[in-house]
Amino acid sequence: MTNEEKIRTLIENWALAVRNKDIDGILAYHADDIVMYDVPAPFQSVGTEAYRKTWDIFFKYTKPGVFDIDELHIIADEHIAFCYATMKCSDSADTGDYVELPFRLTIGLKKIVDQWIIIHEHHSIPAN
Amino acid sequence: MTNEEKIRTLIENWALAVRNKDIDGILAYHADDIVMYDVPAPFQSVGTEAYRKTWDIFFKYTKPGVFDIDELHIIADEHIAFCYATMKCSDSADTGDYVELPFRLTIGLKKIVDQWIIIHEHHSIPAN
Repeated sequence: MTNEEKIRTLIENWALAVRNKDIDGILAYHADDIVMYDVPAPFQSVGTEAYRKTWDIFFKYTKPGVFDIDELHIIADEHIAFCYATMKCSDSADTGDYVELPFRLTIGLKKIVDQWIIIHEHHSIPAN
Repeated sequence: MTNEEKIRTLIENWALAVRNKDIDGILAYHADDIVMYDVPAPFQSVGTEAYRKTWDIFFKYTKPGVFDIDELHIIADEHIAFCYATMKCSDSADTGDYVELPFRLTIGLKKIVDQWIIIHEHHSIPAN
């Protein structure tokens, strides 16, 4: 498998883990010092425990099973890579009813020995 | 200069060009097919002309001369790199008065021949 193929598989499995509410699967290939910029506050979440908490908020407000990759671009060298993607989930934070929520995602990765690891995630929606 | 140093200089010069409202300086090292996820809508801006328009919106609502790098992390290989940063500008879109606006920034770069080029930017604030 090429680096691009390995990373695509990693991200597809991560998104599947989100859909399955499988927190161990979500965290499987993340650096201990992951830096997350998420859709809702806080402004940033640093480290595994803070990153884990962002998923508690996500699962509280979004429709189970919806976390879909729309279009994923992967740019990889031998040891460093980044991806950007348009994504969809279904959110109830505004009205209590689920509404389709498109969002933007950028991920930064580093290859440690022979394993790609996520060291940065940036999820957002445009501001009002 | 190391790759990290070259990229830090490139990003500091880009931020300086923003502070100086120097649109040619802002665009100096961007790919023709740059993909921008900006703080306000649109959801994404693809290509130089769309990217240029995001700065018209920025200059309309923000205080001239304020576009400051707070903390910048650079992760670079020989040909691919990404950065993430906490940033500050000063925005008047909500009330008409300038209010300090911290935002998050992620940038993806590619080295073409011997020049680092920005191919992706993601600017955001946490959603309400």
